[in-house]
Amino acid sequence: MKTCIDDGVPAFDGARLLDGLRTLRGFGARGDAVCRQSLSADDMRSRRYLARRMLDAGLDARIDGVGNVIGRSRQSGPALLLGSHSDTQPVGGWLDGTLGVLAAIEVARALLRCPATAHLAVDVASFIDEEGSHLGFLGSRAAAGLLDQATLDASDSLQGGSLLPRLKAAGLSGLVEPLDLARYAGFIELHIEQGPYLDDAGQSLGVVTAIVGARTLDIVASGEMNHAGSTPMARRRDAGRAMIHLAAALDQCLEQMAGPYTVWNFGQMAFSPGATAIVPDGAMLRLQFRDQDEDLLDAVEAAMMALVQARNGRDGVRLEAVRRGEPTRAVCMDGGLREACIHAAHAVAPTAWRELPSGALHDAGILGRVMPAAMLFVPSIGGISHSAAEDTRTEHLLAGGEALLQAVIAWARINNQLADGS
Amino acid sequence: MKTCIDDGVPAFDGARLLDGLRTLRGFGARGDAVCRQSLSADDMRSRRYLARRMLDAGLDARIDGVGNVIGRSRQSGPALLLGSHSDTQPVGGWLDGTLGVLAAIEVARALLRCPATAHLAVDVASFIDEEGSHLGFLGSRAAAGLLDQATLDASDSLQGGSLLPRLKAAGLSGLVEPLDLARYAGFIELHIEQGPYLDDAGQSLGVVTAIVGARTLDIVASGEMNHAGSTPMARRRDAGRAMIHLAAALDQCLEQMAGPYTVWNFGQMAFSPGATAIVPDGAMLRLQFRDQDEDLLDAVEAAMMALVQARNGRDGVRLEAVRRGEPTRAVCMDGGLREACIHAAHAVAPTAWRELPSGALHDAGILGRVMPAAMLFVPSIGGISHSAAEDTRTEHLLAGGEALLQAVIAWARINNQLADGS
Repeated sequence: MKTCIDDGVPAFDGARLLDGLRTLRGFGARGDAVCRQSLSADDMRSRRYLARRMLDAGLDARIDGVGNVIGRSRQSGPALLLGSHSDTQPVGGWLDGTLGVLAAIEVARALLRCPATAHLAVDVASFIDEEGSHLGFLGSRAAAGLLDQATLDASDSLQGGSLLPRLKAAGLSGLVEPLDLARYAGFIELHIEQGPYLDDAGQSLGVVTAIVGARTLDIVASGEMNHAGSTPMARRRDAGRAMIHLAAALDQCLEQMAGPYTVWNFGQMAFSPGATAIVPDGAMLRLQFRDQDEDLLDAVEAAMMALVQARNGRDGVRLEAVRRGEPTRAVCMDGGLREACIHAAHAVAPTAWRELPSGALHDAGILGRVMPAAMLFVPSIGGISHSAAEDTRTEHLLAGGEALLQAVIAWARINNQLADGS
Repeated sequence: MKTCIDDGVPAFDGARLLDGLRTLRGFGARGDAVCRQSLSADDMRSRRYLARRMLDAGLDARIDGVGNVIGRSRQSGPALLLGSHSDTQPVGGWLDGTLGVLAAIEVARALLRCPATAHLAVDVASFIDEEGSHLGFLGSRAAAGLLDQATLDASDSLQGGSLLPRLKAAGLSGLVEPLDLARYAGFIELHIEQGPYLDDAGQSLGVVTAIVGARTLDIVASGEMNHAGSTPMARRRDAGRAMIHLAAALDQCLEQMAGPYTVWNFGQMAFSPGATAIVPDGAMLRLQFRDQDEDLLDAVEAAMMALVQARNGRDGVRLEAVRRGEPTRAVCMDGGLREACIHAAHAVAPTAWRELPSGALHDAGILGRVMPAAMLFVPSIGGISHSAAEDTRTEHLLAGGEALLQAVIAWARINNQLADGS
């Protein structure tokens, strides 16, 4: 294989990418599914494999104190950071973040092997626990300096017990070791879409506009428990019926306010005491809504609160909505890096790409708080992810890797880091 | 105290009724509440007390194989059976069925002490487990011949394990011993209303038209689990949203169809998997509705089924409604006994009584399947029952006892069992 194409443009080694994907699939394979939760034995084995692969590509590689695999170019910055995550859901698919990690390694390898681009500083990362088996974005938060040592030391794993002993049991120091943020001009993450927009439209590539923000409201109704046979309807303070009609009204209001990419979910609803013949004195509903536009999210949240307030006290039922946790703010992708990604998409799939927001959260949403960030998507067949059925056509996997390389070159060109014509 | 009033009319001993109520309250008292679940030590002690009290009133008393306390008049039939139940909810009130048992004993006593009525055959029963701590209407079903030995022997207690060892541990034989149904012309049960109609209207007595029928539907929605961030709204098969709008539509339809005494309850609602960020693939809703009119219940059930069917498949969500258990059929009170109760209500509270259905189930609903049955209600303050706050004004307790006596006399008069003028 040639290391450079005409005019010193580096060549992306698609066969190597596919080989890496198949190899990594073997760590935690369960039939077509991949079970490689962060810190598991399979996950830690895969990290050592990734470190070797980074070394082999010409990067200095290390596994940091929380398990991030960092491949660092020997070139001084300003550097680009590429990568994603390689842990999976308890029962996950073979691509998810893994594609973005392996493609990043191949991009670094290609750049280093081509004299015209070997001087570019491009680092690679596989962040740990993006899927939240233990802490949720543990790796990218630690790398971005958004998780301090004291917080980590005091953290429990979502699987129970302290997190620190779990890190140590996996052979990690548990030390938070933030990246040298001054080194980086930005972060680009390639990922499968996980939604159906690209696949439905028959497109090969997506350039992400923003990672959506998400807000969650817990809505609670409080009425009075009563005998469901002997209490006349007019005398009831029925938290269940009040909640049913409130939920329907909230949903209708959301339909009215939604933008083209707005999504919402009533993930939980429950009545208490939950007996056939007892009028419920309590009901709860959890509503989560997402959009890339924080102004829209503000407006929706205000409308939800107003609707709850307007019905509060009706039929003797108290209604209250409270935010659950802090909102996840929408993270706009950086204009310059996005421009580079658009250049790349144009080059690789001139008529088969689009811009779209990411409805799922990603490490780029964390990194994007401390440095410019951008994302490229490839299609998920049927929009399916987090499942054994997760898949992407081979040509789209290759298009993704090629686009990531082209985005780096476009960025370098825009920033005058390449000689004219290279 | 005189045993007869003028013209040989027996005198109801209200003081004795109140004394009995206070005594029985002591069995299982927990503050203002009474905790006397069937077969508990307190319940069994109270049954022996009731048997002694029946003996003292002049009845032959026994506790049958399942715990019913039966006080039998030495007179031959046709007999009237009076009574109710004396077990309570896990945390119950002091009156509930107890009032009807103790008032029945006082009626039997009064009739026996008055020469003009001493020949009337009036038996008294305290049925066990009306509240369903173990089997639900265990006592009245066994007494009415509606529970056979094999079924009982094979039954589990609602508290777990076989029922039979629990009966034996309470000192009972576990033998089903039905009443001699040929002996009885009917059953009259005095009970607190447990609803607010009488109390709201400032009335002292109620004559029950029917014990309502109840039907329960389990409604299930099946969709598809999806990522609640990356799946566009139009692509979702959201069982939760479908159920919210179905429930609202069912409720509106019920509002349209309801008669003056129709009640309904959405006692359970739950989404699965119940995660904030996963589109629910399942939702369940339990609907129970009650009325005294079986034709109305048929119509409501048909409408509910039709509504579910009409929405089945909309937005990719399958909807299904199935009956939960057998319907509890409405039981009309017997015309003749009801007439006797109306006579009694007229006599005791000429301008302060009404006819009304019973929204709660009662032993009279079981006995009413095998013999004529009727019920008298006294008000529940605030409509509250099954609670430490359950109470009835003393004058209404006394009116209830007096009305039960008058109903027996009216029945005897109508049936030519009393000499003219007595």
